[in-house]
Amino acid sequence: MADQYVQKPAEVEPSMLPSLRWDEPPEGPVLVLLDQTRLPAEQVELVCTDVPALVGAIRTLAVRGAPLLGIAGAYGVALAAVRGFDVAEAVEQLETARPTAVNLAYGVRLAAEAHRRAVAAGADSGQAAQAALSAARELHREDAEASAAMAGHGLALLDELLPGGGHRILTHCNTGALVSGGEGTAFAVALTAHRAGRLRRLWVDETRPLLQGSRLTAYEAARNGMPYTLLTDNAAGSLFSAGEVDAVLIGADRIAADGSVANKVGSYPLAVLAKYHHVPFIVVAPTTTVDLRTEDGASIEVEQRAGQEVTEVTSPQLGVGGAGGGLSVAPLGTQAYNPAFDVTPADLVTAIVTEVGTLSPVTGAGIAELCARSRQVTIS
Amino acid sequence: MADQYVQKPAEVEPSMLPSLRWDEPPEGPVLVLLDQTRLPAEQVELVCTDVPALVGAIRTLAVRGAPLLGIAGAYGVALAAVRGFDVAEAVEQLETARPTAVNLAYGVRLAAEAHRRAVAAGADSGQAAQAALSAARELHREDAEASAAMAGHGLALLDELLPGGGHRILTHCNTGALVSGGEGTAFAVALTAHRAGRLRRLWVDETRPLLQGSRLTAYEAARNGMPYTLLTDNAAGSLFSAGEVDAVLIGADRIAADGSVANKVGSYPLAVLAKYHHVPFIVVAPTTTVDLRTEDGASIEVEQRAGQEVTEVTSPQLGVGGAGGGLSVAPLGTQAYNPAFDVTPADLVTAIVTEVGTLSPVTGAGIAELCARSRQVTIS
Repeated sequence: MADQYVQKPAEVEPSMLPSLRWDEPPEGPVLVLLDQTRLPAEQVELVCTDVPALVGAIRTLAVRGAPLLGIAGAYGVALAAVRGFDVAEAVEQLETARPTAVNLAYGVRLAAEAHRRAVAAGADSGQAAQAALSAARELHREDAEASAAMAGHGLALLDELLPGGGHRILTHCNTGALVSGGEGTAFAVALTAHRAGRLRRLWVDETRPLLQGSRLTAYEAARNGMPYTLLTDNAAGSLFSAGEVDAVLIGADRIAADGSVANKVGSYPLAVLAKYHHVPFIVVAPTTTVDLRTEDGASIEVEQRAGQEVTEVTSPQLGVGGAGGGLSVAPLGTQAYNPAFDVTPADLVTAIVTEVGTLSPVTGAGIAELCARSRQVTIS
Repeated sequence: MADQYVQKPAEVEPSMLPSLRWDEPPEGPVLVLLDQTRLPAEQVELVCTDVPALVGAIRTLAVRGAPLLGIAGAYGVALAAVRGFDVAEAVEQLETARPTAVNLAYGVRLAAEAHRRAVAAGADSGQAAQAALSAARELHREDAEASAAMAGHGLALLDELLPGGGHRILTHCNTGALVSGGEGTAFAVALTAHRAGRLRRLWVDETRPLLQGSRLTAYEAARNGMPYTLLTDNAAGSLFSAGEVDAVLIGADRIAADGSVANKVGSYPLAVLAKYHHVPFIVVAPTTTVDLRTEDGASIEVEQRAGQEVTEVTSPQLGVGGAGGGLSVAPLGTQAYNPAFDVTPADLVTAIVTEVGTLSPVTGAGIAELCARSRQVTIS
């Protein structure tokens, strides 16, 4: 049974969005999530006391974004262990909660492996649970560090590709503090550019169907005082056409061994537009997003979500995560095609910015080399 | 003052959508519009007794679509004349109600010219008004004929470009009976293919921000029993990538002398995707959509609409036409870029299908030749 309750978080500072935190109230340890389906209308926390509650939050996108899913997965394993639930069952439920973002499975396995090793070394259940929790905390901290490193590498790349400054950056979906232990991936680069006085405009794609751009990226941009403008996804073409985009910056949910990038649906059309208009298309993601076991783009499993997300519109007031409960816009019985992600081949990606450096051009050999330099652990 | 009331229309047959009709109840002549902002939730008619009411309906998109706007504009002039309002003032208000679709100004001028000629020939005000009404009726009838002719030419083109049959057509916005005196432009081609047993799938872009695809094209496809699937605009890239699109068919709001095509925002990204994937990109529009006085794409005025259409979502239950009244999805104070149209250069257009034939490749000389063959009247 899911065991959740809702509470209002304390006031937070800009760029200190507590998208996820481990808490230990007297009633026992919990994983506290900022419910991203309610933003920007209100800041509501979801408190997960067990894995099914967390799995529910992952599926409805209350918690989302590749790096954060990894962290959430690791804490989920720790939660099961600390509270005395079956760890193997927790691993299975969490790993398969969403199929595309490889970080989720990575985080889950990392904490599970720490737990397994502790048990193998003779630890009691309490000590083994603490080992899982330590692994989750380390992943959380490393993600924050990776975020800062990516922001630095990303800004250096922008300055190199676009001398002159005054960058006009187009981004898709949400890749800020809400998806990370730090300030995010692509968004963190734009934020760093803004702080350095070199962001002229952040163009924010609304990101249908679940409007992560309108709801979350606009929210983070507003909180940070960045110059931003929202647009429907299909209006990006007009911006390219008018020469108003200097670079596209997006995150990633999985990067295959050949450098193909799975990211939020709508990324691939931007890559094609960027290519056509000779605009750099830059992917910013930690090396934990690379999955060397996924050979190429065609091997990436793309999550297909409920058609109701397309046949209905909804708002944060109504809760946007799950299908149903929205306002119907299409005739009854309308069938919808609703892939959550698309795949951009390496030849359309100008560069991949990671915490260990920037890869450009994007090649399979380069991807392998990046991974070799990263702290990422290979877990079977 | 706008003078409108709402009534339920009688049951109508599939493909007999009375998007617009002239009526003469005892209280005096009226122009009756199917309120497209309320579809598909309900069929509500707007009854316009004067030009300001019609201008309001045009601005809120209760009546919309390039060919239908031309017809509505012509009837609007007739309405002013028949009811004894100032015809010159009506012409000015109607011509400028929306800037991009050239058909609106064309229809307005056509009826105004008929009125002017009648007056010049010594007709009394009643006879002159009837001349304007006859011109509107003729444009309405000609548009229905043009629609049937375009459908025939379009299907012949599809069969030529895609010999095997079983066409999978992607379309954007709404171009069916709702925008026409007949069965429409691009949609009419798909419908004709369907009736001939050669439509495998109609992919319907939802068409943010006002969802003409979800609300109107899905409605028309469902009424006609066509195999259709709805998708967010940004998911079209995935379909191209998977080889699921055989041709893109769209309408047009203005075609410049050089063959550049202004159409609903989101058309240009589809043209770039189609080019990248070697898929035919076909524009279906009557020759009244060609504006030889607009030299090139850069000269086309693109209507910028209120940002609230992007920062809010709404549904037919709430009324989708005007900004305001929707559910807010972005933070307060968010600025949005909301062009209603984009412009596709001729080199990305495989063919333009008109009532007088198909032009491919699309060149300025070809456009001029098409217009010379059309019945379109040049009005200063």
